[in-house]
Amino acid sequence: MFDEVKFSHEYFMRQAIREAEAAFYKDEVPVGAIVVVNNKIIAKGHNQVEMLNDSTAHAEILALTTAYNAFGSKYLPEATLYVTVEPCLMCCGAMYWGKIGKIVYGTTDDKNGYRKFTSSSPLHPKTEIVTGILAVECAKLMKDFFKNKR
Amino acid sequence: MFDEVKFSHEYFMRQAIREAEAAFYKDEVPVGAIVVVNNKIIAKGHNQVEMLNDSTAHAEILALTTAYNAFGSKYLPEATLYVTVEPCLMCCGAMYWGKIGKIVYGTTDDKNGYRKFTSSSPLHPKTEIVTGILAVECAKLMKDFFKNKR
Repeated sequence: MFDEVKFSHEYFMRQAIREAEAAFYKDEVPVGAIVVVNNKIIAKGHNQVEMLNDSTAHAEILALTTAYNAFGSKYLPEATLYVTVEPCLMCCGAMYWGKIGKIVYGTTDDKNGYRKFTSSSPLHPKTEIVTGILAVECAKLMKDFFKNKR
Repeated sequence: MFDEVKFSHEYFMRQAIREAEAAFYKDEVPVGAIVVVNNKIIAKGHNQVEMLNDSTAHAEILALTTAYNAFGSKYLPEATLYVTVEPCLMCCGAMYWGKIGKIVYGTTDDKNGYRKFTSSSPLHPKTEIVTGILAVECAKLMKDFFKNKR
């Protein structure tokens, strides 16, 4: 019972939020991601687009590359990727190629999220999606960040 | 006149094909990409998914990351990316975020190319597309590669 509570989606999303907070304090758009296999965190990442001057350096991409290195595999069907904000099309494409088993995201992103592309899902047909986990906390970080920018 | 010939789409696509050939001889799916600004090649890349065990290591992503580093900028609106095969959704997403000025690709990819997603283009509205440059040569590399696999 203890483990069930510990290893809930909320538990892992809190670790992703920590990553998002790390981005926030570096003045990066606050998105964080972690990759979990068998209830173990095998990779973490937060958005580093500004620091690396690389618009591909999204939290998910950085976490995935770390995860592939950790596992020595380019496919991770057993993995769950937690990310605080709905992934963009690039990141969904990356998860498609990696055959990621499950994606759990916090808040939606109506501007850049993948759901804008409705004719055909960009995700792998076997990828399971869970949404809305700690959505309020995930969204608050984004709102606070962009409020400070205006 | 000489320069016009030299700096044609065909000229630059030949350099991308060289990258694709490098992938081919490493037993990687033969896709090559280069990034050009003001008629200068600022970055090259070829598919390294197998070698790096990283399903994000597409030719375009590797070339873009090199290009961002070379320019110290996360946007490249002045750049043209040449790639031998129609980009996938991940790579289009990457080029969207990088605001790449122009994409020139060789052969189409009906299975994994971005055009499968017809409801809304995944590319930046300002990105220009040129297709079919040395398409036969680009396609031949792919066909030869997959023929050897069967």
